[in-house]
Amino acid sequence: MSTIEWFDDLKLGMRFKSGEVTVSKADILRFAREFDPQPFHLDEEAAKNTMLGGLSASGWHTAAICMNLAVQTRPFGPHPLLGAGVDDLRWMKPVRPGDRLHLEGEVVELVPSKTKP
Amino acid sequence: MSTIEWFDDLKLGMRFKSGEVTVSKADILRFAREFDPQPFHLDEEAAKNTMLGGLSASGWHTAAICMNLAVQTRPFGPHPLLGAGVDDLRWMKPVRPGDRLHLEGEVVELVPSKTKP
Repeated sequence: MSTIEWFDDLKLGMRFKSGEVTVSKADILRFAREFDPQPFHLDEEAAKNTMLGGLSASGWHTAAICMNLAVQTRPFGPHPLLGAGVDDLRWMKPVRPGDRLHLEGEVVELVPSKTKP
Repeated sequence: MSTIEWFDDLKLGMRFKSGEVTVSKADILRFAREFDPQPFHLDEEAAKNTMLGGLSASGWHTAAICMNLAVQTRPFGPHPLLGAGVDDLRWMKPVRPGDRLHLEGEVVELVPSKTKP
């Protein structure tokens, strides 16, 4: 992907792909203890008898990992990755210890800002 | 709020309110270093010249804090807080060091599961 400096450098259909991170059991437990202390995120044995069927990362942990992958990838070059909100976030599959995650994105719409040109 | 054990215990209009947490500067920096390393989440001086106008928590940090408040509040009694996704998440205002957050919720719709009765 060529360097993105300005809004006009973005084109529909441009794609980006991040590097990869491996999610460790220690990472899952640490995040869960602070932010999402439920059995399926905290305890391997207890997790087996839950809807997730085994120890899994908090969905907010997965989201945060994806944020970091996005920041490292810099799809908008030097510009910040900052949004007012999120729609259609879906956790499709549990993230287990040892899973490797990467992020793929595509420019699907280009809407010039009315207030921050 | 009375004890919630079963789906039928939930009624439209039921409200819940969590305890309060204070978000420290150290918390903001620690989360940002791992998950959202951008100037407005990392550096008090640099943050002043950004759209957020000062050091602010990552939106994913705020979301994770809210998850923890929800888990502590147990709006569904002994049942897990687990969802397939999120819609209409909006970060309305920056969360600054020292800000105190709590969560308020209301039962606005009751949809029996088709697959997990």
